[in-house]
Amino acid sequence: MDESTTVAAIAAVYSCGQTSKTVAEVTKKANPGGAMNLMHEDRLFPAVPETRAIAKRLYAEIRELPLISPHGHTQAGWFARNEPFPDPAKLLVQPDHYIFRMLYSQGIPLEDLEIGAEELKDPRRVWRIFAENYYLFRGTPTRMWLDYAFQELFGLTDRLSGATADLYFDAISARLRTPEFRPRALYERFRLEVLATTDSPLDSLSDHEAVRQSGWRPRGAAPRILPTFRPDSVVDPDFAGFAENVAKLGAMTGENSGTWDGYLRALARTRERFKALGCTATDHGHPTAQTAHLPHCEAARLFDEVLAGRAGDARNELFRAQMLTEMARMSVDDGLVMQLHPGSFRNHNRQLYERFGRDVGADIPMPTDYVTGLQPLLDLYGNEKNFTLILFTLDETTYSRELAPLAGHYPCLRLGPPWWFHDSPEGMLRFREQVTETAGFYNTVGFNDDTRAFLSIPARHDVARRIDCVWLARLVAEHRMDEDEAVEVAHDLACNLVRRAYRL
Amino acid sequence: MDESTTVAAIAAVYSCGQTSKTVAEVTKKANPGGAMNLMHEDRLFPAVPETRAIAKRLYAEIRELPLISPHGHTQAGWFARNEPFPDPAKLLVQPDHYIFRMLYSQGIPLEDLEIGAEELKDPRRVWRIFAENYYLFRGTPTRMWLDYAFQELFGLTDRLSGATADLYFDAISARLRTPEFRPRALYERFRLEVLATTDSPLDSLSDHEAVRQSGWRPRGAAPRILPTFRPDSVVDPDFAGFAENVAKLGAMTGENSGTWDGYLRALARTRERFKALGCTATDHGHPTAQTAHLPHCEAARLFDEVLAGRAGDARNELFRAQMLTEMARMSVDDGLVMQLHPGSFRNHNRQLYERFGRDVGADIPMPTDYVTGLQPLLDLYGNEKNFTLILFTLDETTYSRELAPLAGHYPCLRLGPPWWFHDSPEGMLRFREQVTETAGFYNTVGFNDDTRAFLSIPARHDVARRIDCVWLARLVAEHRMDEDEAVEVAHDLACNLVRRAYRL
Amino acid sequence: MDESTTVAAIAAVYSCGQTSKTVAEVTKKANPGGAMNLMHEDRLFPAVPETRAIAKRLYAEIRELPLISPHGHTQAGWFARNEPFPDPAKLLVQPDHYIFRMLYSQGIPLEDLEIGAEELKDPRRVWRIFAENYYLFRGTPTRMWLDYAFQELFGLTDRLSGATADLYFDAISARLRTPEFRPRALYERFRLEVLATTDSPLDSLSDHEAVRQSGWRPRGAAPRILPTFRPDSVVDPDFAGFAENVAKLGAMTGENSGTWDGYLRALARTRERFKALGCTATDHGHPTAQTAHLPHCEAARLFDEVLAGRAGDARNELFRAQMLTEMARMSVDDGLVMQLHPGSFRNHNRQLYERFGRDVGADIPMPTDYVTGLQPLLDLYGNEKNFTLILFTLDETTYSRELAPLAGHYPCLRLGPPWWFHDSPEGMLRFREQVTETAGFYNTVGFNDDTRAFLSIPARHDVARRIDCVWLARLVAEHRMDEDEAVEVAHDLACNLVRRAYRL
Repeated sequence: MDESTTVAAIAAVYSCGQTSKTVAEVTKKANPGGAMNLMHEDRLFPAVPETRAIAKRLYAEIRELPLISPHGHTQAGWFARNEPFPDPAKLLVQPDHYIFRMLYSQGIPLEDLEIGAEELKDPRRVWRIFAENYYLFRGTPTRMWLDYAFQELFGLTDRLSGATADLYFDAISARLRTPEFRPRALYERFRLEVLATTDSPLDSLSDHEAVRQSGWRPRGAAPRILPTFRPDSVVDPDFAGFAENVAKLGAMTGENSGTWDGYLRALARTRERFKALGCTATDHGHPTAQTAHLPHCEAARLFDEVLAGRAGDARNELFRAQMLTEMARMSVDDGLVMQLHPGSFRNHNRQLYERFGRDVGADIPMPTDYVTGLQPLLDLYGNEKNFTLILFTLDETTYSRELAPLAGHYPCLRLGPPWWFHDSPEGMLRFREQVTETAGFYNTVGFNDDTRAFLSIPARHDVARRIDCVWLARLVAEHRMDEDEAVEVAHDLACNLVRRAYRL
Repeated sequence: MDESTTVAAIAAVYSCGQTSKTVAEVTKKANPGGAMNLMHEDRLFPAVPETRAIAKRLYAEIRELPLISPHGHTQAGWFARNEPFPDPAKLLVQPDHYIFRMLYSQGIPLEDLEIGAEELKDPRRVWRIFAENYYLFRGTPTRMWLDYAFQELFGLTDRLSGATADLYFDAISARLRTPEFRPRALYERFRLEVLATTDSPLDSLSDHEAVRQSGWRPRGAAPRILPTFRPDSVVDPDFAGFAENVAKLGAMTGENSGTWDGYLRALARTRERFKALGCTATDHGHPTAQTAHLPHCEAARLFDEVLAGRAGDARNELFRAQMLTEMARMSVDDGLVMQLHPGSFRNHNRQLYERFGRDVGADIPMPTDYVTGLQPLLDLYGNEKNFTLILFTLDETTYSRELAPLAGHYPCLRLGPPWWFHDSPEGMLRFREQVTETAGFYNTVGFNDDTRAFLSIPARHDVARRIDCVWLARLVAEHRMDEDEAVEVAHDLACNLVRRAYRL
Repeated sequence: MDESTTVAAIAAVYSCGQTSKTVAEVTKKANPGGAMNLMHEDRLFPAVPETRAIAKRLYAEIRELPLISPHGHTQAGWFARNEPFPDPAKLLVQPDHYIFRMLYSQGIPLEDLEIGAEELKDPRRVWRIFAENYYLFRGTPTRMWLDYAFQELFGLTDRLSGATADLYFDAISARLRTPEFRPRALYERFRLEVLATTDSPLDSLSDHEAVRQSGWRPRGAAPRILPTFRPDSVVDPDFAGFAENVAKLGAMTGENSGTWDGYLRALARTRERFKALGCTATDHGHPTAQTAHLPHCEAARLFDEVLAGRAGDARNELFRAQMLTEMARMSVDDGLVMQLHPGSFRNHNRQLYERFGRDVGADIPMPTDYVTGLQPLLDLYGNEKNFTLILFTLDETTYSRELAPLAGHYPCLRLGPPWWFHDSPEGMLRFREQVTETAGFYNTVGFNDDTRAFLSIPARHDVARRIDCVWLARLVAEHRMDEDEAVEVAHDLACNLVRRAYRL
């Protein structure tokens, strides 16, 4: 069976049944003459000529500004070792839950995509499945991020499809073997000013140390690849291995983490260890935004319960709530900016979780309450000068109802950019439309790319900058803002607000 | 009292009080010269010339495609008997809760509209009240659907108002007496490819049988008027006459429906009976999306309780939840596509319910939880290859927060089109804007007209097709999609997705 | 230290820390040459030329219509005494929680703004802080309201900033001393037809009496400055001083307000007293939309409990719920239109509340349930001809899900305009987009300015009228409405609906 037959066979397997012919046919005739470009220079800008012209002027002002990535999921080890990235499937498909969740939703087994495999047995086959189904991503940000990388990084100009799958695979593979595609070279090419990773308190941070010691001097200065303190594994009793994690935390810090006070000291010491390597922020991935303020003795008793694994759901939730308040207290002390990412029902698909574990695209948002949830914490620290709490949400109903009013009042609060499913052109516009009138621009913090997909970072910042310009251009075109002010706001959204909010 | 005096008197009765004169005056001077057309050829297309041109090109591609109506509330009997439709008031006002709820909201008694009457005593008077108040529908989809029917079916071009009420009544009445306005002729004129009705398991489906036996061959083939299995009356303990309905179900199937196992067998047999007449789908109108997975013995005990009428609200809800899971199990077995329409607080206005019964425009949406609600069902069948569950909502907050993430992950899930109050230009745009970026186009299922108003079917599909083209045109104009891909998506949204999702 | 040094020092104090330099620099270079105008004649109109032209035509029709303000928080005493307004800071900054909540959110202490002070010690310093931070209001309605007042009332054309702070302070101060800026002169200049205040049942309404007796005859007729009956202080057990307030109510009416029946009679008598001074409406600021219908004996027992202060949270809430139903009953009797403003978590910031009391910008919206909440009241009075209940919300998710369906059915219900945080261009557009298709235009009630800031009234009505024209222009441009109908709707939204709904 030659390769083109294989591609057709794969396509047949994954077409979803009875009447999908037209879709398949249609995909085949796509892009018949070969497009000149995957991405248009004016993409995302509004069709109204007057507004588009303003958006283009604004974008020209900020297009080349450095990228600041204060929150994401890349790995310091890439830069410590500076080894080539692997093949296209391993690099682009396997780690990207935006991609494989869509494929899975249309009936493609995760096994066929080799999700979870350490090494891919047949990366070309995985790539072909992806390419054959690329039409599924029409209208999604994933499509836009990928096309950007295909065109801007790999010089590809024909649309990805079953027909071009091998061309893509070979072209990308070849580039990845060149020095220009090593991690450090890409860091410099991307004009990254700061790149924050997300790290467990149990991480030795040796990769971060190694980057610092490596002698690598992008643009003549020390690289700013910074850890972020993400303590979920040691503050969430429902996290797999919680008690063992807490014990390990004690061992790593020389504190008796089996007692409430020792545990808190161990956390504080670990935060100091992170700070010493440039960390400026913490991050918290709780299921809700609930906080609590328990008396010391009650908190200590609750800690004993959760550590012994006899607390139950409600008490575990109370412990997480108390820990958010403890983390806020420590932030007031040590100046680490606090980030809260609540509202995801993790691992909703139990069958997949049992087979593949966490992070396989089965996390689903839930309604989130910030107003009563955050009150215990805000009662204590809401008016503190030295405290910053950046809020994220997956529940867009809270933008105008809760988050903008809260951030438009409390000095400590700032709003993070649209998160996860909402990190998209429409999602970003909804955020600005629903937040700006109550909280303004200056209670927001610029963009986070929040990605595991290193190659998508420039594309994601590009989308964010374009959409900010679209929003500002609309305000200018409707005479709700003068253009000189819009230029300033565009600069602030691209760089100044993120530097300030994250204390970079 | 001559007729024009009557009209004025009616108008006086229904003007809402003190200072409504201007509104009334204004309505009278409306359309002074007589409009040339009720509907503009470019209606609903955006004003931006660049985008409008794209929308028009896309619409031209799909305008004439056949109509597929996989979910609605027309009656097979119309086509079995092929009798003329009655007068304008009986045909257009009396069955349409979109119309009479608006009139009622402005103080017009349902009695005056003869709602619920088998035969109208004074259809011309009902029609005049409606015409006199037609200005109330400005900006609503009802206005657009009606104007389409007035112009396209009845050739009317002057705006409906008190002044033109009689002209309309007489013109429509005359047309309804012609052969071209018989149900079968309209079915053919509408280019219907499939028309699904909604039917109780207690229905003999003799009308569907009769259509099949009638010898009628639209466009040379058998008519595809298909039943849909809607078991609310026998699975919802709060449905009026539940226990009697269950007993009747047993009698109809020869099963002992007084036992849990016999009841389930009776349902399975009835589904087979529906399938034999072309049914491809079930539909479920539950108050919530709650599902459950009880052990057999517990489910059997619960069934005994609900059948005996001693279960209470929470246990009734648990039974409905269990029955959704049972229906899913049967769908895995028999291949019927499952539709879930949750979240309506039925019969909110108790005084009206006592006087007029169900479906008088007093059903009000409620917040709906899909994430925890559906989990028991999805735990069992969420990853089944042969299972399709189409979700609808009245709670638009779930589009981006719950429905798109769920449908963008689970292979069994698809999203139905905007439902009921949201089956409107703005509602459809919100759906695409909030769903597409996470779930794409291919986890949606095209359009449902969902109507009791047969004459409105072409108008409703026309609105849906135009709005899909508006959304796609925006993507093309903003260089988020190439036009050749948009053409394919437009075809898929108009026909291919609905055929595939409903297994037609 | 000269004044310019002071300004710089203040700016330094309030810049939020490490890296704010660029923002500050940028603000300084703002508006370098001096803009010709703060406000563009076409502000808020869409950029699409075709749509803008329609919007301008519609706006020209309604621009000069009188202003009707049926709900707000100005003071009758201003017009009774007709004294000059004080300095710019006292007039514009101190009473406007939209302004000082934004400043506070960016770290400026309320003490420095002299919030709560009877007389400002250093109004020029307060003004400078505000001016220096005026860039924070970019993109907010506050900015638009203020710029309107600066330009239209005070003739200022240079943008407000640190550099122009003194110029503004001096110019405004000078104008405020002229006869043209006395309250009565402004009332006439604003073309106010009606101005409703909001008043406690414990208010003697002597200021309203005084206005009536004053002999002032704006445009040759009696001024229509009308009280609104707002009984929160005597129907909400959680209101500070509730029991004392109830006792005072008894004393003022000669009823024994210590008994349930006497208390209800005292309320009814007070409503009559308000009516005698022109009051046409009541207003209710409850935390939720919960209503109740208790038997008389239970209600009486509950009253005893709440009056004794031993009811607890749930029983207090039940009492408020019962009182909404009692108020509805009285409205059916006396014809006062009822307004409900639910869903605000008052005084969320406890530290500020303890230091500054109520209304310091720390009220945060909460999710609000209308569907089950209002049912007890609607069961009793929902179909009453003589009853109008106008609903407001801070929870925009209820627009399409609950409020439009409820108002599109119940004859008594009307929807108030977008409230508080949503009284803004985007907020108003969301309201029309989400409400119109289900409830139409005629179940809405025109605009409320709802303001304490008298000088902002023309600006607020201007924004509302422009946005209504924007929405109508979009419908016309997309051929969803003919322009002659849009003209009529524009008139209805500007004047007719508000006159009718509030029975003015």
